[in-house]
Amino acid sequence: MDETGRHDTIRPGERQVHVPPRCDAALRFIGRCRTPFATRADCPRQGRQDGPDCALEFDPPWDAALDGIEAFEHADVLYWLDRARRDLVTQSKGGTAVPVGTFALRSPVRPNPIGLSRVRLIRREGARLIVRGLDCIDGTPLVDLKPETCHHSAPGTPAR
Amino acid sequence: MDETGRHDTIRPGERQVHVPPRCDAALRFIGRCRTPFATRADCPRQGRQDGPDCALEFDPPWDAALDGIEAFEHADVLYWLDRARRDLVTQSKGGTAVPVGTFALRSPVRPNPIGLSRVRLIRREGARLIVRGLDCIDGTPLVDLKPETCHHSAPGTPAR
Repeated sequence: MDETGRHDTIRPGERQVHVPPRCDAALRFIGRCRTPFATRADCPRQGRQDGPDCALEFDPPWDAALDGIEAFEHADVLYWLDRARRDLVTQSKGGTAVPVGTFALRSPVRPNPIGLSRVRLIRREGARLIVRGLDCIDGTPLVDLKPETCHHSAPGTPAR
Repeated sequence: MDETGRHDTIRPGERQVHVPPRCDAALRFIGRCRTPFATRADCPRQGRQDGPDCALEFDPPWDAALDGIEAFEHADVLYWLDRARRDLVTQSKGGTAVPVGTFALRSPVRPNPIGLSRVRLIRREGARLIVRGLDCIDGTPLVDLKPETCHHSAPGTPAR
């Protein structure tokens, strides 16, 4: 994978498949992630909840859908890894590692390149949510935000 | 919401928006979830890891992408809630509850209706993975599977 997050060459043992350009469902981006990570090489392997402040920026009308999020301490963020290839069934993370199945890795390279981070909610600033725990490149399109309801129950906000 | 998971009426205080039928990214279904839940009314509010056995069925060629998953105990499953509406900014979960923002709920009704469950991996049977912890209707399209790597490190399978 190069510093932009692309992974254009096939390493020994990796298996590429022909993926027809089918669309079973359409995603609509709802905003973007703001992080201090300009390139893939800058990104941590996994986000840390004691890492740097990042921001989730919501486009209208979805900023209003944040009402009530202040009651939670953690959330799951889904984002679209728009630079990742989608056609590898097995992957080798280094030149020498044994290839493993794509679903046994959290690599950005997957048939549906959706990233998932569990973040710590720091504060809301209108249409922006300050969080810690993201691991993606600055500008990554935002797809969804779900409060973490397993360990906290917020008054007035049913778990589901 | 009716027993099929649809939510066709607007309750007091709920806010609907006009969502243009835009496609920013295309999802390709990779299989389906098999659960004992035939209707939305049968589904648990949230999946339980001591709940009933369910199956993730992977279509070719993605079944081969499971190789190595046996090393993990838990995984995050992403699926597409194909019966959910996508245009509510605020929602009221009961007729009387105060509406809250869509992103402060884990409701299936959201701009990108992707469901997320953390499941316990029971065993692999070829292209099927037996899991516990799903909460969706039988036949729900499968989008992604990611091993849970925070608490377990598997030999030979790098964390990312």
